[in-house]
Amino acid sequence: MESNIKFIDGGVVAPQGFLASGIHCGLRKNKIKKDLALIFSKNGKECTAAAVYTKNIIIGAPIIVTKKHLKLKNGTAKAVICNSGIANTCNPDGIEKADLMCKLTADILEIDESDIIVASTGVIGAVLPIEPIQNALPLLKEALGDTKEAGEDAATAIMTTDTRKKEYAIEFILDNKPARIGLIAKGSGMIEPNMATMLSFITTDVDISSEILQNVLTDVIQDTFNMISIDGDTSTNDMVSIMASGLCGNKKIIEQNSDYNKFREALYIICEKVSRFIAFDGEGATKLLECKIINANTKQDAKKLAKSVIKSSLVKSMMFGADANSGRILCALGYSGIDFDPEKINVKLKSSAGEISTCVNGFIIKIDEDKAKEILSQEIIEIIIDMQTGKENSVAWGCDLSYEYVRINGDYRS
Amino acid sequence: MESNIKFIDGGVVAPQGFLASGIHCGLRKNKIKKDLALIFSKNGKECTAAAVYTKNIIIGAPIIVTKKHLKLKNGTAKAVICNSGIANTCNPDGIEKADLMCKLTADILEIDESDIIVASTGVIGAVLPIEPIQNALPLLKEALGDTKEAGEDAATAIMTTDTRKKEYAIEFILDNKPARIGLIAKGSGMIEPNMATMLSFITTDVDISSEILQNVLTDVIQDTFNMISIDGDTSTNDMVSIMASGLCGNKKIIEQNSDYNKFREALYIICEKVSRFIAFDGEGATKLLECKIINANTKQDAKKLAKSVIKSSLVKSMMFGADANSGRILCALGYSGIDFDPEKINVKLKSSAGEISTCVNGFIIKIDEDKAKEILSQEIIEIIIDMQTGKENSVAWGCDLSYEYVRINGDYRS
Repeated sequence: MESNIKFIDGGVVAPQGFLASGIHCGLRKNKIKKDLALIFSKNGKECTAAAVYTKNIIIGAPIIVTKKHLKLKNGTAKAVICNSGIANTCNPDGIEKADLMCKLTADILEIDESDIIVASTGVIGAVLPIEPIQNALPLLKEALGDTKEAGEDAATAIMTTDTRKKEYAIEFILDNKPARIGLIAKGSGMIEPNMATMLSFITTDVDISSEILQNVLTDVIQDTFNMISIDGDTSTNDMVSIMASGLCGNKKIIEQNSDYNKFREALYIICEKVSRFIAFDGEGATKLLECKIINANTKQDAKKLAKSVIKSSLVKSMMFGADANSGRILCALGYSGIDFDPEKINVKLKSSAGEISTCVNGFIIKIDEDKAKEILSQEIIEIIIDMQTGKENSVAWGCDLSYEYVRINGDYRS
Repeated sequence: MESNIKFIDGGVVAPQGFLASGIHCGLRKNKIKKDLALIFSKNGKECTAAAVYTKNIIIGAPIIVTKKHLKLKNGTAKAVICNSGIANTCNPDGIEKADLMCKLTADILEIDESDIIVASTGVIGAVLPIEPIQNALPLLKEALGDTKEAGEDAATAIMTTDTRKKEYAIEFILDNKPARIGLIAKGSGMIEPNMATMLSFITTDVDISSEILQNVLTDVIQDTFNMISIDGDTSTNDMVSIMASGLCGNKKIIEQNSDYNKFREALYIICEKVSRFIAFDGEGATKLLECKIINANTKQDAKKLAKSVIKSSLVKSMMFGADANSGRILCALGYSGIDFDPEKINVKLKSSAGEISTCVNGFIIKIDEDKAKEILSQEIIEIIIDMQTGKENSVAWGCDLSYEYVRINGDYRS
């Protein structure tokens, strides 16, 4: 089934029916850093839409407004507006500003303000000045396009401390039609669990009902975005949204049939790809860590164990130093809150430089330190942990903890 | 009641009835670093004893052996033996080695091996060579003394990445007699929650039953050692033990009466003191963070909220950079798992340089950045969070996240 799924160039404008743009409006001091992005359904066509949000109790004003809009419009939307630089969270006038941002965008696009998904990312507690956005909107509209460049502009405008833009597109056959999914995302610090300071805007030309779209998005996110951890912090502003234009021409997906499964698989693959990349591009990261738990008793156990390892500051630090101190991996499993038999644990470390077994049946074994150092000196490190008691597997992604992380976060606002 | 409690010089030999020593036996390469400590009840007198252990599922062999001994001897003990450098955990021969360490110590002290509390701290998974310990025991016994120096030797011998030795002693009046509690501890990395890689050995000359001693130790630890977090990791080898010689001459405490309360208060004060110091001396720490939650609905809520803030890598990094980014504090409260009203939160930052309000009723307010910078540039920072809904308070201690933490943990074993 997977064979007909292939990555293609581009991002949110790769699927039929979408335009995008991104410009510098002035919320950020650095004039070459774009800070305002727009995604628009061509000709204001109504798309089915769904979203998943942060589980933090303190939530950004834009999330409150987006939730309201998707509810008002019964799971449809026509545009996404997103600024970077300021999170518009914990301000007395946050909702007012988010509403105004939608109203101004709606006016210029000639749609309803409740057709808009709004997002903000950046410093919490800073007041969002609306003038730069208001002044930039005509230009932002004018810049809308379906070219590679237009999509890239939107991808770069949502970045904060990301070092690389995150955009992907995928093509697959659905109901004998070529269907596409496109995606832009921002990640970096404060990602975990349940998607902290992570934004992703997904588009697709698949025809699918709002309800089913919400189901599949929620489902896929559990195993992808929610399995990333950069530093254990969960942000107030995370959101993944998806808009479906329906223009690929497939028979509308309204139930969990084989077309649903094909769409789910494609969505999973693109979300997994960006999740790994977000982890790899974590603040200050020099390495991608991929923790695979195999043969756990339950899926939930496997997930919690994988997350516990990937979140451990001591595991992250040892990976930065390429020091195969497996005791720290066992230790992180041990305080995960999951009950298991310590004397069944096998641990392997793996990378492009090879594979080494470091723990067998709960006991740490003597290893070739030079070989281990070489394995851990690569950019992508797999930590494979066999619980030997069940049949459930899970993967979590993270990164190492570096001097650079501390530098970035010691003085983020300046 | 507090007035008659005073700190005095010394550590575990300050209370009547205890000897201590610490030497370099060779488990560590650095010959000037002591690595083996002994505490012994004078003349092998039986002490009542109690201990609290790590909650990690993977537990060090010494803990298994200590538990066994305290059970066998119905909550009594005569000596503590502790090495640093190697944790003796996750090795196939761990229990055998811990047993042997006790047997050799018992032989030389002419007591039963089950009279011994044994502990190890250091690298997990390395095999513990017994010869250096065996060879050093005669000298360790000979070095036993009740002088300030002897107590200090024991305090330094249990240190790992600690930069400063941790020993305290306290004197108070109990049943009209001067009573004492003495303590040595090691802390540093991987401390949280429930006392990770934290060892503390406490002595007292109070006369108290084993059962009541266990109660009071467990109780006090909840609000002291268990409220420290250095990096969110919980170690496999943590233990706090206490031995009571009964030599101060008080009427034996066998129930929760007023003498119990006096003893509890003194124990709390000394444990709080060392907990703060352990946090301050966390790996790479430049600052002590003290998070005070006030007016929460329940004690449990207050504790979880305080721990969530103190554990946040983003909060820790901003403190390192002296950047008053209160959004991160709110964010950490928001993902603590505790339900609360975001619009009631007040946050103040306080230090010897003054106090500043940064968040009022859930909204971040504009602050004097220079003043905030000065406040956060001090060594001890209080984060005071008023939930404004209940009456329960809690304090947690932590430290900032520095370049030095990453350096230490990137290459701990070398």
